[in-house]
Amino acid sequence: MMWYKTKVTEKLGITYPIIQAGMAGGVTTPELVAVVSSHGGLGNLGAGYMQPKAMLESIQHIKKLTDKPFGVNLFVPETPDVSLEEIKQANERLAPFREELNVSIVPEVKRPTSSLFYEQVDIIIEERVPVCSFTFGLPDKETVQRLKENEIIVIGTATTVEEALANEALGMDMVVMQGSEAGGHRGTFIGTYQEAMIGTTALVPQAVDQLSIPVIGAGGIMDGRGVLSTLVLGAEAVQMGTAFVTCKESGAKSQHKAAILNRTADDTTVSPVFSGKPARGIRNEFMKEMEKCASDVPAYPLQNTLTKEIRSEAAKQNRPDMMSLWSGQNPGGTEQLSANELITHITEQVNHILKGKW
Amino acid sequence: MMWYKTKVTEKLGITYPIIQAGMAGGVTTPELVAVVSSHGGLGNLGAGYMQPKAMLESIQHIKKLTDKPFGVNLFVPETPDVSLEEIKQANERLAPFREELNVSIVPEVKRPTSSLFYEQVDIIIEERVPVCSFTFGLPDKETVQRLKENEIIVIGTATTVEEALANEALGMDMVVMQGSEAGGHRGTFIGTYQEAMIGTTALVPQAVDQLSIPVIGAGGIMDGRGVLSTLVLGAEAVQMGTAFVTCKESGAKSQHKAAILNRTADDTTVSPVFSGKPARGIRNEFMKEMEKCASDVPAYPLQNTLTKEIRSEAAKQNRPDMMSLWSGQNPGGTEQLSANELITHITEQVNHILKGKW
Repeated sequence: MMWYKTKVTEKLGITYPIIQAGMAGGVTTPELVAVVSSHGGLGNLGAGYMQPKAMLESIQHIKKLTDKPFGVNLFVPETPDVSLEEIKQANERLAPFREELNVSIVPEVKRPTSSLFYEQVDIIIEERVPVCSFTFGLPDKETVQRLKENEIIVIGTATTVEEALANEALGMDMVVMQGSEAGGHRGTFIGTYQEAMIGTTALVPQAVDQLSIPVIGAGGIMDGRGVLSTLVLGAEAVQMGTAFVTCKESGAKSQHKAAILNRTADDTTVSPVFSGKPARGIRNEFMKEMEKCASDVPAYPLQNTLTKEIRSEAAKQNRPDMMSLWSGQNPGGTEQLSANELITHITEQVNHILKGKW
Repeated sequence: MMWYKTKVTEKLGITYPIIQAGMAGGVTTPELVAVVSSHGGLGNLGAGYMQPKAMLESIQHIKKLTDKPFGVNLFVPETPDVSLEEIKQANERLAPFREELNVSIVPEVKRPTSSLFYEQVDIIIEERVPVCSFTFGLPDKETVQRLKENEIIVIGTATTVEEALANEALGMDMVVMQGSEAGGHRGTFIGTYQEAMIGTTALVPQAVDQLSIPVIGAGGIMDGRGVLSTLVLGAEAVQMGTAFVTCKESGAKSQHKAAILNRTADDTTVSPVFSGKPARGIRNEFMKEMEKCASDVPAYPLQNTLTKEIRSEAAKQNRPDMMSLWSGQNPGGTEQLSANELITHITEQVNHILKGKW
């Protein structure tokens, strides 16, 4: 039963078509990335928010831990023009949360630039990272060319077939189709996110039918059933985020892990209130309170900067009601596994399903 | 390869775990229902809007066409209290569409009652229809008991695990889990529909893990890939709507069939503007124009009554921009098939997938 041999595993040089999503914000420790890669998947460092030095150290750390291929995920930069008045209003709305947590620091907001992104790309090339993936849009053509000339495999993210075709046209080697079930930030970059909330079951086959490059399915996949079902839909691999958040090697806060393990899917929602960009997470008090002004929060990454202290202080004070508890629509589980145990569970479950009536 | 033998096929006495959704509004002609059942699936008459006489005639017609099991789908009645002022405002908003179509009839709106529902249930029992399914909520316990005493299999609809557990507690023999990809009306009956937009990939495994009764997966399933993937997720059958709308035997308007065959998924949205109840369809001018007052339309079934002439006149005048073009998130296809061809295609595709690497 060679279900796990696909175009993606061949191209990436990995054993199982299981990609650990490059979640930013400290979830993807070098240990997590390395364990996933060492056990036949593709680990990914979520470097979206990382400064060059920290990113370089993480990459070098991963290399010490594994000699298998791994990837780095980058955020395509956005440099929105936000007025001081908007920032002021946003700070007013956040004041009650700061007060509740005794946070006195109101972050200084600078106009975002693209320079971090290009420094990150340079490091990826210098360090010969095998795979570079992108979310939040399309990088410029020169960047894609540079990476490819350096034999780095490039992976894009899309939430609609239109976005996937744009990734293909840009030269991406493969594309992650992010179904509406997915946790964390939406990768939508054409139109509004509401127009691009397509479930994995509907999204993957459409993309497979209209693209030439391999499709990686994502969104709501938590176990062997989800992996095999997505391969049946025509995907050549899956990307899983939430399932890896709760792993022992993950750097997610303990409250975040507990929230995923104990919750049901009815509790998640997509909202831009934490970062300015729509993201799916467990609907806690912060999300509920801020919902009424959701359309007024400053664009990403500005709101993300404004809520930074609130989120980190909430974690320190054990207040999950004010943390960003990113999760897909299929949270649950009963225990923290090591990432290698998770991969073993998944592959055993797939084999078990296939040994059944099929 | 006995992939098609499941608890649901055994209980229903059908060959394939493929259920044709009981779509209302004339789509499910006796021919469609009978062809699906004759070819090993479960055909369903969508009787939600049908008057007793028409429903009885359809059931008797189906029986002449097939001796295989089939079902009837009913709408659990809703009797909202809507003020005359609300109706007046709704009519004002609809006036431009009536004008455009030269529709002079402004329908008289009566307070909805539950009496039709109980007449429908009586007919189902008298006619010994093998299967009765429900959507839009839970029927009363007595109705479920009466049907079961008459050896009629009862199937509920749910959009969350909470709703599914309520169906199970009521005595339903099985439950359709309607993923967010699904076309047509949402079956949500606990909380708001926005809180219950869970993709099939996430919804089905959760339900399977928490229910004792068999789960039927629905939402975005259009071909053999979708069918097999949903069975892999743990469903014991699938329910398909959109794929059957375009079949030759379907009574859907030609513009509706064409809209599904020619569109891509990015074009669908969930909106209550046609009927007062959220439903997924192709986002046409009527939906776009009415979007701004979506939260003000009178509750189902009142808005449905108010838009009736607009919809039927739009079809007559070939104005798909004002018709309700229900569709799931995976529309497409290139040709109208007979329902038996569709079932054959699906089963052949499943066999083909299973003969591949698995």
